[in-house]
Amino acid sequence: MKLLEDRIKKDGIVLPGNILKVNSFLNHQIDVDLLDKLAEDFKKSFDGVDITKIVTIEASGIAVACSVARAFGNVPVLFAKKHKSAALSDDVYYSTVWSHTNSCNYNIVISREYLSSDDKILLVDDFLANGNAMNGLIEIAENAGAKVQGICVAIEKAFQSGGDALREKGIHVESGAIIEKMSYNGDIIFRS
Amino acid sequence: MKLLEDRIKKDGIVLPGNILKVNSFLNHQIDVDLLDKLAEDFKKSFDGVDITKIVTIEASGIAVACSVARAFGNVPVLFAKKHKSAALSDDVYYSTVWSHTNSCNYNIVISREYLSSDDKILLVDDFLANGNAMNGLIEIAENAGAKVQGICVAIEKAFQSGGDALREKGIHVESGAIIEKMSYNGDIIFRS
Repeated sequence: MKLLEDRIKKDGIVLPGNILKVNSFLNHQIDVDLLDKLAEDFKKSFDGVDITKIVTIEASGIAVACSVARAFGNVPVLFAKKHKSAALSDDVYYSTVWSHTNSCNYNIVISREYLSSDDKILLVDDFLANGNAMNGLIEIAENAGAKVQGICVAIEKAFQSGGDALREKGIHVESGAIIEKMSYNGDIIFRS
Repeated sequence: MKLLEDRIKKDGIVLPGNILKVNSFLNHQIDVDLLDKLAEDFKKSFDGVDITKIVTIEASGIAVACSVARAFGNVPVLFAKKHKSAALSDDVYYSTVWSHTNSCNYNIVISREYLSSDDKILLVDDFLANGNAMNGLIEIAENAGAKVQGICVAIEKAFQSGGDALREKGIHVESGAIIEKMSYNGDIIFRS
């Protein structure tokens, strides 16, 4: 999506450690209109696909998911909560996710009440890099018996292999912008 | 807002400790259409008021804030991040907030880049009870020199005194539903 690529070029800051700072429109401050336009693009890519629920992870995924839910006819958003504690109750599905940024494991949990084998879900997030968080959501979906119809992320870092590994598994992955290469004090190159 | 009151009566669950569980449409699963309608109501209450930014706290405030931002002509959303660590960098405004639910202090932080004395802001959250989180956002706004034009929350627990204390300070507070009284296994009574 050119609008998003242009915004990343204009306002994104590449930090050491392959970090792309997009706090001015996605991760801290949010441009809701940009997300709505991105969501309309996702809807076109999944035209005719039955979606009963949008599933994401707190916190930065929520804004993207709400825009996507609206574009898909106001289906419910369901966001996985992050738990540092290993103590989990029996009424949740969970998965353990490795955080590359913070070098620690954390659990993501979804209440069993809100996800079932009747659900056909679209997984949504702000970033897709190594795919750890996304694979955690997929594990939860499998445990719930829900069908993953596809994945939509705002920004994919293709030089980390999460997105392409998911595509190789046969999952339909759409990204608003796919970054092939970026470097500290250098250019950001998008997949064409 | 009758639609929200009806939804709370239908799907809200009162738990011991004055906890209202609304995980099915607000805190875990989100009904985006309901939030959009609530946001339109808030817009009517603040008709003609100049708003440059919607400010909220992660995670449950983000969905409400995105709907409100849309209703106010797509002004940016800015969400405060929660930090358990006391170590904070110089480039943030912060406030220390007491969490009644978790019986601990946490810091909320907003980057100095995104809030200034030019801003006229609307504070948004999912819940208003004792007002601790809201007072934290107000402290941050004061430190940034931003003007607080008002507060919009989905659900206010009036039996805790946060909302009325803010009104007594002269702040325009709008709540989608104001609960006067609720009890475990009992009725939920709204302010008329």
